[in-house]
Amino acid sequence: MVSGVSSEIDVKARLRAAEILRERFKTLINQILKGENPTLIIPKRTLSNTIYDEKRKLLLLGSDTLERSFYDVREAKKFMQTVLMASLIYEALINNEYPTIRDLYYRGKHSIRFRDFKGRIKEENTWDEQRESDSVIRDIEVFTNLLREEMLILSKEKGKVVGNMRIRSGDDIIDLSKMGHGAYAIEPTPDLIEFIDVDAEFVLVVEKDAVFQQLHRAGFWRKYKAILITSAGQPDRATRRFVRRLNDELKLPIYILTDADPYGWYIYSVFRIGSITLSYESERLATPEAKFLGVSMVDIYGHKKLRKKPYLNEAERRNYVIKAKPTDIKRAKELMSYKWFQTPRWRIELEIFLSKKSKLEIEALTSKGLKFLMDTYIPGKIQTKDWIG
Amino acid sequence: MVSGVSSEIDVKARLRAAEILRERFKTLINQILKGENPTLIIPKRTLSNTIYDEKRKLLLLGSDTLERSFYDVREAKKFMQTVLMASLIYEALINNEYPTIRDLYYRGKHSIRFRDFKGRIKEENTWDEQRESDSVIRDIEVFTNLLREEMLILSKEKGKVVGNMRIRSGDDIIDLSKMGHGAYAIEPTPDLIEFIDVDAEFVLVVEKDAVFQQLHRAGFWRKYKAILITSAGQPDRATRRFVRRLNDELKLPIYILTDADPYGWYIYSVFRIGSITLSYESERLATPEAKFLGVSMVDIYGHKKLRKKPYLNEAERRNYVIKAKPTDIKRAKELMSYKWFQTPRWRIELEIFLSKKSKLEIEALTSKGLKFLMDTYIPGKIQTKDWIG
Repeated sequence: MVSGVSSEIDVKARLRAAEILRERFKTLINQILKGENPTLIIPKRTLSNTIYDEKRKLLLLGSDTLERSFYDVREAKKFMQTVLMASLIYEALINNEYPTIRDLYYRGKHSIRFRDFKGRIKEENTWDEQRESDSVIRDIEVFTNLLREEMLILSKEKGKVVGNMRIRSGDDIIDLSKMGHGAYAIEPTPDLIEFIDVDAEFVLVVEKDAVFQQLHRAGFWRKYKAILITSAGQPDRATRRFVRRLNDELKLPIYILTDADPYGWYIYSVFRIGSITLSYESERLATPEAKFLGVSMVDIYGHKKLRKKPYLNEAERRNYVIKAKPTDIKRAKELMSYKWFQTPRWRIELEIFLSKKSKLEIEALTSKGLKFLMDTYIPGKIQTKDWIG
Repeated sequence: MVSGVSSEIDVKARLRAAEILRERFKTLINQILKGENPTLIIPKRTLSNTIYDEKRKLLLLGSDTLERSFYDVREAKKFMQTVLMASLIYEALINNEYPTIRDLYYRGKHSIRFRDFKGRIKEENTWDEQRESDSVIRDIEVFTNLLREEMLILSKEKGKVVGNMRIRSGDDIIDLSKMGHGAYAIEPTPDLIEFIDVDAEFVLVVEKDAVFQQLHRAGFWRKYKAILITSAGQPDRATRRFVRRLNDELKLPIYILTDADPYGWYIYSVFRIGSITLSYESERLATPEAKFLGVSMVDIYGHKKLRKKPYLNEAERRNYVIKAKPTDIKRAKELMSYKWFQTPRWRIELEIFLSKKSKLEIEALTSKGLKFLMDTYIPGKIQTKDWIG
């Protein structure tokens, strides 16, 4: 045991998760004692059971469930994997461990020797690939309604934050306005963070770390009373949950700034709606109120009907605009098939993109001067509500 | 100007870099006034001018130089690019900008119209690809002896640190022992950090962010008086410089912990020796005293002559060891050709790797329990000096 070093808040989180996990899986013991076929009833994580809730503007799991039984040849292996993983997670919880999903894959990986119905000795691996063990972790998440973070499963984290705000994490109080030129790297279990006090008017989430560094260094968050965050590319779960909590609990508006390309729009949509493969997380990780601040195709080319002038002139477009790649075009067509991109405003974006076959990086705007990005583009767009909601 | 928000230390750094840059390029004006052909004499950054200094154990630039003249048809474009980039950097410095290398690429990207010797109007792009503008940034670094960070050119940063240490960054004093479950994200200009006080006995650099999270969470750095750092994969320049300064100025021993594979060993070698393509940086970014703590092939398989027992038993090896990919084999053979991997101890590592064609992730060790990694493997190896130096 690594006890005596872990923070109080972790100890509490462990006890809670271990308790819920034990209670949820105890049904199996009851079934066995009653001579029943041990069966887990788990919400289905299939695409057909993934529903876009138009009202809540979230991707959610539907009500379909699956039965995973011990005495079912097709399900027995998955049943074994699920129970094995639950026991690994439970052991890690009570032993003060902080496994990653990769650890759990290794911990459970071994060969089971058994006799088949003809009495021959056979071997079967618990799992071969990590995607098998990851899949049962997800099943356990939906089965117990505990996110992996609540089970103290840690992961790589890329998100950073600065701003006029104090938080409690572990046993420390951290002043996010006193990070110098560096930043605070968000912890993998953001639900254990306590917001102490905040003096900010909005949250700006920047896709690119290097742009975050520039805005931070130039004092953007201080000047405009912002909480400044970077997801450093595709956001991880902790950054998404942290952003959601800032919106939910502190009622701060969230603005997302990405490159003007389908990859950037997808990043925005993961923050706002959730990801399709992990729709069961959306309810807690997605921020339906997040706004897409830019860079939009309309920012680049303007739009007569919308009465928008472009932020770039002809010469700047010639120098900064990049030709879209076939994968960008493919991704854009995918986005068009998603309900949440089927609004009039997003249709304009995607149509301009597909007709111009062009994209733009945020850096093209900082090339017009950091001052332009910091003092004209961002505050101007916020003030005139020139975002896509 | 974004003035009034930037920290005092940035203002000083700007003035210094602008002054050096101006002085260095003023020679061109003197040459022009004297009616000479404007010429820059720049250290050569070629492979043939990259030397492994056996004594200092560093990759360094040799003494070869190249001449880049305006009146030289083959060099005129490169000359123009170099002067253009120098002026962009200078402007950014005096305008309180914090460009990235991507910004500088965009800022300089345009078409120059000119008449050719037959009087026809022609167009020539300043540069098309970022690798062209990046290359002249490197030329300017070696020409001025100013690293890009000293010219306030920012970049994406991944490095994180925690430990019993206080630093000054910008206008703030930051206590790296009070980061809660999060961490301090190192700034892109680590030379501007001031070390205030430190109570630590060594530095542990972990390749993988998720392993860093686990060790941090379990209180490793507090228990063993360590500064704990992650490079989150291939280290960026700021993390390398930060580690070097901890070794240089605070005399702390540096231990590197990576996966047992050629990619991990290469990460170690970048920390220790420098990277081949950027050898001019090694003198300030590399840490020749850094030790490779593990995971070594000998840790996995043991070694009779070295009298080392393996840390894994046969069953654990069967479950944890991964088959090497062709790219791993290729990379290992490359490593064998580098002088600094031609020590008896590294030869053993590479020979075991090539004969077993197997690799191992650090996570395989945490699968034996985080306690094993934290309280047995790491402190044991440090105590018995079981590293590769």
